[in-house]
Amino acid sequence: MRGRLEFWYEFASTYSYLSAMRIDDLAAHHGVEVVWKPFLLGPIFKAQGWDTSAFNIYPAKGRHMRRDLERIAMARSLPFQMPQPFPQNSLYAARLAFAGEAEGWTPAFSRAVFKAEFGEGADISSREVLAGLLEGIGLRPAPYLDRIETPEIKDGLKARTDEAQRRGIFGAPTFITARGELFWGDDRLRQALRWAASEFFLDCE
Amino acid sequence: MRGRLEFWYEFASTYSYLSAMRIDDLAAHHGVEVVWKPFLLGPIFKAQGWDTSAFNIYPAKGRHMRRDLERIAMARSLPFQMPQPFPQNSLYAARLAFAGEAEGWTPAFSRAVFKAEFGEGADISSREVLAGLLEGIGLRPAPYLDRIETPEIKDGLKARTDEAQRRGIFGAPTFITARGELFWGDDRLRQALRWAASEFFLDCE
Repeated sequence: MRGRLEFWYEFASTYSYLSAMRIDDLAAHHGVEVVWKPFLLGPIFKAQGWDTSAFNIYPAKGRHMRRDLERIAMARSLPFQMPQPFPQNSLYAARLAFAGEAEGWTPAFSRAVFKAEFGEGADISSREVLAGLLEGIGLRPAPYLDRIETPEIKDGLKARTDEAQRRGIFGAPTFITARGELFWGDDRLRQALRWAASEFFLDCE
Repeated sequence: MRGRLEFWYEFASTYSYLSAMRIDDLAAHHGVEVVWKPFLLGPIFKAQGWDTSAFNIYPAKGRHMRRDLERIAMARSLPFQMPQPFPQNSLYAARLAFAGEAEGWTPAFSRAVFKAEFGEGADISSREVLAGLLEGIGLRPAPYLDRIETPEIKDGLKARTDEAQRRGIFGAPTFITARGELFWGDDRLRQALRWAASEFFLDCE
């Protein structure tokens, strides 16, 4: 691998869906390792005075986002629909994805969540839906649905979200290279991957 | 020409600078005609409760914007510096650009304003600076600096800005095709041009 890129994403975020569905293929093409970092945007939005998505607060921005997603999904042959309600409550999904890091199934589970939510309009706040997604990647759901109520997972995800805020993350998806270069938005993914690969060559000089 | 694209821009906007410096070349490549539409974002931001740029209201977003601009400007071999203060008062520049539409010098003047502001850090609220830019494109400044105090120009620019809001514009740059497809952001410029060109072929079927 040449370089490393952290992929910070929020399950309620439409543009995170776009990146989640392509980042591993694109990163492989660039020879860059991806580290999946689920976190929660809600607390960061609250700290800047928002109680919901900017796409709800500013209707014209929200209308453009929906159409933008339709156009991009069409160009990438991705299914897309807005879940109801939007944004979804992503707390349990994020805790599960966080719990998966120790066992290596975070990317597969996260793609499954995004696909169910934005490809099929599923309600990802539902424990039943999440149980089905865990089964879909070959896991027995019950132990994991218990684990996300433990302080280890709850506090771990809180610390992850604090770290996001401390490192200057204000939206999702965000990409951070090994040397700390931060890129915001699915439209910066290729640039972030090229940057991560270039850092590797710098470090090898 | 194959299709038409309206380019809605605000002189205080960093991402409008990026689009202004490349849109005519890119559009020529796609065979698309560009209609330059200067307008003011200030009244639209005020209507949604902001008294300055979102990049000032949300510091993490502002830090990312500066770095993002540096990276993109570097990749495109464009000079870039932040003007002081940011955002600049763009009222006179926008009135002049609006006045130029009847005579066809709006694109040349607008590029000169953006280059002075973001390439050289000039203060574009200054009538002296604006006079120099008018001279630079071969015009005698005095009559135009008088005209921008007339109701014709003042009301015309106000109507333009009302039109922007009515058509769903919430930021700059924004691109709108002949059939009303709206794209927000310099990162959507190529997509908007391809869309505009495709509409032309649809209309020719």
